[in-house]
Amino acid sequence: MESQQKSGSNIGGIESGERGVATANKIKMQGWDFVLRFLALGLSLAAAVVLGVNKETTTVLESVVPTQPPVNVRATAKWHYLSAFVFFVVANAIACVHAAISLVLTLANGRGKKGISMVIIFFDLVMVALLFSGVGAAFAIGLMGYRGNTHVAWNKVCNVFDRFCHQVVAAIILSTVAALMFFLLVVLAALNLHKKH
Amino acid sequence: MESQQKSGSNIGGIESGERGVATANKIKMQGWDFVLRFLALGLSLAAAVVLGVNKETTTVLESVVPTQPPVNVRATAKWHYLSAFVFFVVANAIACVHAAISLVLTLANGRGKKGISMVIIFFDLVMVALLFSGVGAAFAIGLMGYRGNTHVAWNKVCNVFDRFCHQVVAAIILSTVAALMFFLLVVLAALNLHKKH
Repeated sequence: MESQQKSGSNIGGIESGERGVATANKIKMQGWDFVLRFLALGLSLAAAVVLGVNKETTTVLESVVPTQPPVNVRATAKWHYLSAFVFFVVANAIACVHAAISLVLTLANGRGKKGISMVIIFFDLVMVALLFSGVGAAFAIGLMGYRGNTHVAWNKVCNVFDRFCHQVVAAIILSTVAALMFFLLVVLAALNLHKKH
Repeated sequence: MESQQKSGSNIGGIESGERGVATANKIKMQGWDFVLRFLALGLSLAAAVVLGVNKETTTVLESVVPTQPPVNVRATAKWHYLSAFVFFVVANAIACVHAAISLVLTLANGRGKKGISMVIIFFDLVMVALLFSGVGAAFAIGLMGYRGNTHVAWNKVCNVFDRFCHQVVAAIILSTVAALMFFLLVVLAALNLHKKH
């Protein structure tokens, strides 16, 4: 009923000028949307790749037999050895695909069909949840690798796999910024809807 | 400009009936908002408490000296031994406080001031990000405790601390549902704004 009332007012006189301003606002809004979505795409792709190619082989001194002196042992760290990192890479890959599809849909949806916009906002929100849970998981495991924990007797591994851990940190930072881009996209969409009503 | 045009239409004739329908819709919306917010409050509080009081002391067979037979050793698991669990409890406590404050603000904001509503939606979104990262972190560490990892030589601990791990699972489920409540609050707010404009 309220919407009918509002649309009814469009029959009024100074409509074209106002429509011009609204269109200008929409184009400005779409510009921001495009930039944020493009950044989210690039950052989540970079995060998935940086962790997805992460592998380091090194030599560690290890006491194989307790009574014998320690010997050099070849050890390898790979990203898919840890479930949290697998989840992180998959989450970022999904976010990247969503960013790409939504970018195309946003550009194609020039007339601004509300239904499509709402579906995109919904999935932007899903990406916020997905990426933040991925970052949380990877950060928790990364921190454990960096500091270790005496209570559960989990030794630190970052003193051995130095480069591997640096790449994990880089991927986490990239993914956090990508998550913030999706966060901003949802905030901007809400502000946009708020401004209009 | 557009808002002026819309408000201008309110001078029309059949205004009171339409306002009645709008008010009824708002009350219905506020009802859902109230229920979801109340559930989010209870669930995040429960998650923080269930993990925050988590402590288990048990006896484990451990070989203190390699040449001697293993002896019984008292071992304790506490929630604050692991950073991920501390983050989880703090995140849920923050979400609980936000839910309580926003519940009061929503009830007090009967006239539906847009500014306050937008601030509440923004912080609902922050809670989505915060709770999902907390769940991700706690789940990653919990899964490591349940399965262990041979690659980094982190042994499973849930075979020893059975009850402790069950409480971690319960807290994670509670927090995930709380996070979904905040997620739904953001979706409903977006739909509400969408319907109005």
